[in-house]
Amino acid sequence: MSTRRILAEHVADVALGGAFLATGGGGDTLIGEILAEDALRAAGGVELIPLSALGDDALVVALGSVGSPTIMQEKPGNGDEANWALDALEAFLGRKTTALVAFEAGGVNALVPFCAAAARGIPVVDADGMGRAFPELQMESFSIYGVSPMPLALAAELGDRMVLDHARSSVIAERLVRQFSVIAGGGQCLSAEHCMSGAEAREVTIPGTITLCLEIGRLLRAHGNRVDAFVGDLRPLLAPTHYGEVHVLADGKVIDIARRVQHGYDFATLLVQPFGGGDVVTVSIKNEYLLAQQGDRLLATTPDLICVLDLETGVPITAETLRYGQRLRLIGIGAPERMRTLRALQVVSPRQFGFDVDYVPIETLFANTS
Amino acid sequence: MSTRRILAEHVADVALGGAFLATGGGGDTLIGEILAEDALRAAGGVELIPLSALGDDALVVALGSVGSPTIMQEKPGNGDEANWALDALEAFLGRKTTALVAFEAGGVNALVPFCAAAARGIPVVDADGMGRAFPELQMESFSIYGVSPMPLALAAELGDRMVLDHARSSVIAERLVRQFSVIAGGGQCLSAEHCMSGAEAREVTIPGTITLCLEIGRLLRAHGNRVDAFVGDLRPLLAPTHYGEVHVLADGKVIDIARRVQHGYDFATLLVQPFGGGDVVTVSIKNEYLLAQQGDRLLATTPDLICVLDLETGVPITAETLRYGQRLRLIGIGAPERMRTLRALQVVSPRQFGFDVDYVPIETLFANTS
Repeated sequence: MSTRRILAEHVADVALGGAFLATGGGGDTLIGEILAEDALRAAGGVELIPLSALGDDALVVALGSVGSPTIMQEKPGNGDEANWALDALEAFLGRKTTALVAFEAGGVNALVPFCAAAARGIPVVDADGMGRAFPELQMESFSIYGVSPMPLALAAELGDRMVLDHARSSVIAERLVRQFSVIAGGGQCLSAEHCMSGAEAREVTIPGTITLCLEIGRLLRAHGNRVDAFVGDLRPLLAPTHYGEVHVLADGKVIDIARRVQHGYDFATLLVQPFGGGDVVTVSIKNEYLLAQQGDRLLATTPDLICVLDLETGVPITAETLRYGQRLRLIGIGAPERMRTLRALQVVSPRQFGFDVDYVPIETLFANTS
Repeated sequence: MSTRRILAEHVADVALGGAFLATGGGGDTLIGEILAEDALRAAGGVELIPLSALGDDALVVALGSVGSPTIMQEKPGNGDEANWALDALEAFLGRKTTALVAFEAGGVNALVPFCAAAARGIPVVDADGMGRAFPELQMESFSIYGVSPMPLALAAELGDRMVLDHARSSVIAERLVRQFSVIAGGGQCLSAEHCMSGAEAREVTIPGTITLCLEIGRLLRAHGNRVDAFVGDLRPLLAPTHYGEVHVLADGKVIDIARRVQHGYDFATLLVQPFGGGDVVTVSIKNEYLLAQQGDRLLATTPDLICVLDLETGVPITAETLRYGQRLRLIGIGAPERMRTLRALQVVSPRQFGFDVDYVPIETLFANTS
């Protein structure tokens, strides 16, 4: 991989591919796209650099929006929060950021670092901390592989701002961040966190995922609603990456979607009646699609990705826009290797979300069927 | 008033008087006393300075423990939290603290500044931010009269620490502080806040209240369970201060105490059957005693003080130690002038606590009875 320049004209594809990899999370990208396009146009673009281009002692900061995607839809923020949070973090550290990295390559959070990077004239690293989206901070690969989220800085739309100097665990940090998002931001805030060196970034991130967002976005746009063709091209695109197998889980119609916003997260259960008949497919959601089952049969389990396309348009469907009657394709993708290790599974397996189910790699689930 | 030295031998009286002025809040003082005595013995005492001794540009920081007194009883902290919080605040400000002030002259919070002041070799100001105890940050006279609580630093027992740089209101700050106390501290943390100049401190604090704690403590100790004699001496002690009239509200027996810990506060309702017969006296509690009524008749309303003594021992009873069968004297005291202004009443009157009652000064309630 080599350095490339991300321009305003790339934003729509990064956003579209990010919405696909977001596995239902990451929120609506429209306002994020407008903000990123403006920022990139004003700055003449931002460098997207490979991990190998980072100096060992570079200061890399992870950035992203925290909150309920349902709330983000109505309350997108003012666009300055990332800079506010970075200002506070840099003041605390007494040091400037070398490069930014998305904490998740999902939805609007694939774009957030570009806005701040354009404003500061620094590059974005072609990597992220999940290879998808997940609802909680300790689920970032940075935390999983030993980088502390602290010090972290949070900023909310109306100017509220804090630095969390020390928390005794990433789980405690996640709870404090979430409460700040609820109390100060009405369910939404920006987090600058997981300060790491360039050398650390190479060990703890999921590489190449921003380029992947861009390429998946291009594929989706090229194919429109020809979803079979899209899946056909997605397989060779992912083959050389750290991601696993691609399987179509189901094509069907939404017959029920029950959701609630609680403790700053979106919780939901999606029921899809397959067109070919058979048992209803259930998808369990906490911000993201985490578990797909058909009757008693497991179709896909977190951290493997469950991605949903609208069969009418070929556009990725995020969880907060699911509605009765939508015709969907559910696609399962093996998670990147770094999210499948024993160490990662102790944080992102179904049991960590309260499901009485173990992680089963998607290639095992589909070993006898494809 | 002049500067005096507070020594280990004064701690018990400050604590006893603080427990009285705490109006039921402030928590059990035993462990705070032990920590303060140790700290003062090691340092050879701490200077208690009058507000007039502060340079106009001194940096005065308010300090206190935040949380549920019920939890504090079982989980008193490790004694280092005040220094941790001050370290973080001073690092943020890039400036050393000139003097500390108690955010409330109630219970253990009358002692907290002495521990940190002894460790740092700086004085404590003879004043506080309430003239009593109250459950929430925005109820501190500092906030009421326009000093921002921010930046503030919080530290919890196991090392969790944060700096709140900016919050758009004291009420939002209070909610963030409370959540930190719950999430990071299990219901308990230390707050260093309301950074103010010496000139500001003179405008926004309740003066003389630490000396008053000491003197009330001495009176209580001298009189033991002779509560009539205590009240007789309390009146002339308070007469030259900013406090108002002293009235005995009731002598009676606890016939019910219902309490719960919720959102990091203690909520309770106390029922007292007066010895002389008549309607039951009800005291409504949120950490502190806020409202006393006998049937439909108001006896005392926040911010006026409701102080409770055990008739058997003459010792102040804090809310978390109330129990069935205790024989109590309820004493009402007019709040200090700065807590009775229109500006203060917009924050600390009964309606701010959700009671459908206006503030009525205690001298009005007792105008025809005494």
